[in-house]
Amino acid sequence: MGGDESRESLLSEARDHSHLNEISDLQRRRPRRGKSSDKENNLKEKNVVQNPLHSQYIDPKQEAEFHFKTVLLWLAAYLGGGTLCFLLTSHQIKGIKTNGFLDAIYFCVVTMTTVGYGDLVPDSQLAKLLACIYVFTGMALVGLILSKAADYIVEKQEIFLVRTLFKGENFGPEELSKEVETNKAKYKFILAASVFLVLMISGTIFLHYIENLDFVDALYCVCSTVTTLGYGDKSFSTTIGRAFAVFWILSSTICLAQSFAYLAEFYTEERQKAMAKIVLTRKLSLLDLEAADLDGDHVVSATEFVLYKLKEMGKINQEDILVVMDIFRKLDVDKSGTLTEADLKYSESSKP
Amino acid sequence: MGGDESRESLLSEARDHSHLNEISDLQRRRPRRGKSSDKENNLKEKNVVQNPLHSQYIDPKQEAEFHFKTVLLWLAAYLGGGTLCFLLTSHQIKGIKTNGFLDAIYFCVVTMTTVGYGDLVPDSQLAKLLACIYVFTGMALVGLILSKAADYIVEKQEIFLVRTLFKGENFGPEELSKEVETNKAKYKFILAASVFLVLMISGTIFLHYIENLDFVDALYCVCSTVTTLGYGDKSFSTTIGRAFAVFWILSSTICLAQSFAYLAEFYTEERQKAMAKIVLTRKLSLLDLEAADLDGDHVVSATEFVLYKLKEMGKINQEDILVVMDIFRKLDVDKSGTLTEADLKYSESSKP
Repeated sequence: MGGDESRESLLSEARDHSHLNEISDLQRRRPRRGKSSDKENNLKEKNVVQNPLHSQYIDPKQEAEFHFKTVLLWLAAYLGGGTLCFLLTSHQIKGIKTNGFLDAIYFCVVTMTTVGYGDLVPDSQLAKLLACIYVFTGMALVGLILSKAADYIVEKQEIFLVRTLFKGENFGPEELSKEVETNKAKYKFILAASVFLVLMISGTIFLHYIENLDFVDALYCVCSTVTTLGYGDKSFSTTIGRAFAVFWILSSTICLAQSFAYLAEFYTEERQKAMAKIVLTRKLSLLDLEAADLDGDHVVSATEFVLYKLKEMGKINQEDILVVMDIFRKLDVDKSGTLTEADLKYSESSKP
Repeated sequence: MGGDESRESLLSEARDHSHLNEISDLQRRRPRRGKSSDKENNLKEKNVVQNPLHSQYIDPKQEAEFHFKTVLLWLAAYLGGGTLCFLLTSHQIKGIKTNGFLDAIYFCVVTMTTVGYGDLVPDSQLAKLLACIYVFTGMALVGLILSKAADYIVEKQEIFLVRTLFKGENFGPEELSKEVETNKAKYKFILAASVFLVLMISGTIFLHYIENLDFVDALYCVCSTVTTLGYGDKSFSTTIGRAFAVFWILSSTICLAQSFAYLAEFYTEERQKAMAKIVLTRKLSLLDLEAADLDGDHVVSATEFVLYKLKEMGKINQEDILVVMDIFRKLDVDKSGTLTEADLKYSESSKP
């Protein structure tokens, strides 16, 4: 168990360094003690053992990678299909036109992101209905699928951001990943907001120099675009402008939406931490002991205490516990109140 | 404990009726047994005991009610302030004009929801910058605050929907609230989507009869509005039309966004149920027993099993358990491995 021991010591070191995390603060206040009973040591060791079976059927990382590729394919198919549709009906679309193919893909992006400048609008019943279908499916694609792909990219880049932020402070990789884990939404927000700022600035500069708008108009057009407002009095009207717009509109609108989503997540994260702090620091009463004592033996074991507190924090609910308890009773064939090897063997022999 | 007993029997009745819930299905498969050991009865009873201290500092319902009123005040202040601003700068806004006050509030709603038809656009640097600020704050208001208010309304109405859906089937109130609890996102989606459909139809009829658009154009304008696309070639241009639009645009855009959010939530809910099913039905191995045995006594207690399975389902993680375990060790003054009255008394006398 040498590996586990060194890991445990790394973990406790990480705890001492992570001054940004309130929960870790709570842990630090725990008085340092020498090793006590065997039972307690065993508890500590078991805590860091990872479940080897877990990875067999749940691998979120691999799943996310798979999802990401699927999303890119969907996006390509959706944009390709849309471009073809509006290229075929291009004579039924009125407005400021440049290159036929470019206009079609620009119209697709402006529609699917719901920017809707109105510099190109459908001018026949067919084109109008096509646009209606396209915006609904586009909304679903952006809202349900592309946001997940963006989340995947941000999550992948998060650790690099944290590494850069804490460059001078000599943190180990374990400590950094712990820092990321406990402040996930915060760093995701910082990352998304920074990229968004870069996109805002580059968009403003582009509109000023290429589309010849003055700076206020350029900023106004940028704001009107990234928020998907799209009044349409200022938009991309040159060939090179529309080519830039296709990529810039797609990334900046998603980036702003993700920033807002991470801000909300960050708020929730902070609330959960505050809640955990209240639950973990408040004084325990006799009523608590009674409520936490699930098996009615008049003492509260460590696991009973953990379940009680997690329930209080709102991480799990009574229903979750009831459902698993039911399975436990079914598995506990000899009704001893505990699961042992004997229970497993018995259930195996009874069900051939 | 008469009250708890009758409640428990109601719960098990509910389990037999709720054919829509996979987890309940699992529970039903448990063979019926007579009452067995005292310990097990005690476990069952304790499961339905609610924590009396819980409500002292966490009351989500009351909090939601408070939030809802705050949100309405914010919305009123935001719309009022915006209307005043754009009323004062009304000569700097160009486009199709009707009544001055109505145009200002209509412009506010069209901007904050990011519909942005472009039938009214700012025409000075001041008005443009005001519009930029207004759309960003409006996005935050709609995305972060109004969506929560909408969620509050939907959650309140959910039980009525379920009551209507299961009218013929003679369900008790306990069974209905259990059905709502286990399929929350599903019914929220059905409710939001139904209201959305009504708003779509009423908007189309209104635009056809009051704004004199033909049916395809009316539907096209509705789709362009609810998705916040807002090309602007068709919009509300009459006084009565804009008065209707103020309420209709606000409710229909939020309603569609919420429908998409609930659809995503529903998908997650179904995935979690499927995951719970896999975790709870898969065969237990000796390795599982070893990993679940947190205190190293070579048997797995009911609470150890619950913690192990909840971790496997992804409801809690190792960090959650570690943090609470730490608190437990601090509270367990006599190092017995359990919390008793004596531990509480000791900690009270040591900290004056």
